[in-house]
Amino acid sequence: MPTYADPEGGRLIRAESLQAWTAALLERFGTPNDIAADVAEVLVSADRRGIASHGTARLPQYVALIESGDMDPTGRPEPLRSKAAIGLFDANNGWGHHASRLAMDTAIERARDSGSFTAVVRNSNHYGIAGWYALRAADAGFIGVSMTNTSPVVAATRGVKPVLGTNPLAVAAPAGAHGHFCLDMATSTITRGRVEVALRRHEELRAGWAIDPDGRPTTDAAAAFDGALLPLGGVEESGGHKGYGLMLLVDILTGVLSGSTAAPLIVPLFSTEAGAADLGQAFMAIDPDAIDEPGAFESRMEAEFDLLTASPTAPDAPGRILIPGEPEADAERRSAERGVVMDPEHHGAMESLGERATVPFPETSPIGG
Amino acid sequence: MPTYADPEGGRLIRAESLQAWTAALLERFGTPNDIAADVAEVLVSADRRGIASHGTARLPQYVALIESGDMDPTGRPEPLRSKAAIGLFDANNGWGHHASRLAMDTAIERARDSGSFTAVVRNSNHYGIAGWYALRAADAGFIGVSMTNTSPVVAATRGVKPVLGTNPLAVAAPAGAHGHFCLDMATSTITRGRVEVALRRHEELRAGWAIDPDGRPTTDAAAAFDGALLPLGGVEESGGHKGYGLMLLVDILTGVLSGSTAAPLIVPLFSTEAGAADLGQAFMAIDPDAIDEPGAFESRMEAEFDLLTASPTAPDAPGRILIPGEPEADAERRSAERGVVMDPEHHGAMESLGERATVPFPETSPIGG
Repeated sequence: MPTYADPEGGRLIRAESLQAWTAALLERFGTPNDIAADVAEVLVSADRRGIASHGTARLPQYVALIESGDMDPTGRPEPLRSKAAIGLFDANNGWGHHASRLAMDTAIERARDSGSFTAVVRNSNHYGIAGWYALRAADAGFIGVSMTNTSPVVAATRGVKPVLGTNPLAVAAPAGAHGHFCLDMATSTITRGRVEVALRRHEELRAGWAIDPDGRPTTDAAAAFDGALLPLGGVEESGGHKGYGLMLLVDILTGVLSGSTAAPLIVPLFSTEAGAADLGQAFMAIDPDAIDEPGAFESRMEAEFDLLTASPTAPDAPGRILIPGEPEADAERRSAERGVVMDPEHHGAMESLGERATVPFPETSPIGG
Repeated sequence: MPTYADPEGGRLIRAESLQAWTAALLERFGTPNDIAADVAEVLVSADRRGIASHGTARLPQYVALIESGDMDPTGRPEPLRSKAAIGLFDANNGWGHHASRLAMDTAIERARDSGSFTAVVRNSNHYGIAGWYALRAADAGFIGVSMTNTSPVVAATRGVKPVLGTNPLAVAAPAGAHGHFCLDMATSTITRGRVEVALRRHEELRAGWAIDPDGRPTTDAAAAFDGALLPLGGVEESGGHKGYGLMLLVDILTGVLSGSTAAPLIVPLFSTEAGAADLGQAFMAIDPDAIDEPGAFESRMEAEFDLLTASPTAPDAPGRILIPGEPEADAERRSAERGVVMDPEHHGAMESLGERATVPFPETSPIGG
């Protein structure tokens, strides 16, 4: 996941204030308080980890989904079928964050007995950053896997129309003194959120990231917004078929396995005119201690990353070799020190939303102010 | 996995003849016949699927490992610990193909009860094409996952030394009339085998695939052979950190979870001077019918790929949108019709090996002859 440089005219807010306000706002729009607490925690976690595209900046769109009736803020996940190591939940078109938190917690609890557990969710909604759920398993000492399908914004290899989502895949595991390993990646070249941030911040995209509506490669964020992203690896010649395969892997384990809507038929992202999103999510928890002495796995993780992070770097490298999740963990520490960063558009949107809902947005301070 | 064009001066051989000869040869070198049958099946499957780099062309290297005492052809996998949904095997430094076949079959059998099962193997050796094991699960109606760590030939993002393997990841699932979905990919830009084939066939590599021993990007196969491959996505600027993360994901679930040697310390590929490889492998089987009506998942897979393969293509696309595994399945059909293709070096090596072991290599015919 990309973390961003401080934006011009950005504001800072304490994460705790932002989270309490978010929960209060969601309750005002009909979300039961336990569900609102989950959603606020996941959204603010994205802001704390420097992933502006997946945090509270999304609130106006979530609220629109509630107001249009396309998402049911009171919807509660219910277990449908399960065996010792797999379970299916129906999210009942409620908040994806809550259904997913519950599914991952179920996977963790059940994996304590069985050694591993796969929890699949159907009829769900956007669930924020994939990494949050995987990290929850890592906090419990497990290997955690989290994935979701999403609205079609990516072209298949050789294709021109958006037929697949950015379908993120996250895997986390404890690594001793190195903190948590946390790979959290879209299986597209970039996320749709990244295109939106580029639009907001008037930035160009890199070549190979996207195509325009006619299928021509483009670096223009607006053309990419109307066209399609490319799978990880870009076009076929540069290995994009691998990204396409990974994207399908995520879709198969989430949407197809859970029995949600087929990927190309999923409604547009945050659409308020096309009905429920019916997304699928999948979570896995694997207990390393089930097949080894307690702590042995984590010690080996630490030793592995001792070796990797100390390995020599290329002459033009911007720093030492990193562990996936390290930039986000650094952003999280920085947010704890100084607060969460919001760009002016994000801040303005929060203030408007707060005003409209009569849940005033908390005080902020200028960056470096 | 790349499938190759017909090589100059190539030969054709019936897959059944090649497989019977391979098994007989392996027995001559001390492999018990049930184990030899597994190894021959997996190796010839690579040849049948057009993946020349992972098939019988490897036999001289496997034989060298037996003769140097670095691999024990009689080694049999033994189960160490297990719970309802996870199990650890020690391959006892035997053939990776056999231990892995047994681990995947265990995962499939146990997943019939538990809904999903993860089997992890330590102290193992090279296991051929990752896809074979995943396809075995798909044949049984399951979603199958197969991965292995391998000898370090890939640099970490920002790194210069090879510290990680090409760490393949394969996922397969039945897709009705479309056959099996089978993603089988190295998490590096390309496989080491591909570099070897390029060397043999005097072909250049693409930019972004590899670095030379000083860490400079190179397209020369010999320089890449002495240097390092790059993770999927290439350098950091083009998203190589995602490939690096995927590579680590595979290493964590195989080597670290199973308790094998830390990735950067694994002996060189097919080395006969450094001791046992001690590779780790991981397999997962997920039973879709555990949470749905029998056949429902496969019907949805078929419907999904009906939509995707009929989706419009970009003006310059070389054909319709494909399903991962389709080119390999086509190669398999073609091999069934005309026989398996061997380039002259491959054919010559097989004849020499057969002569030395007094297991004469079967008759072949020229391509198009």
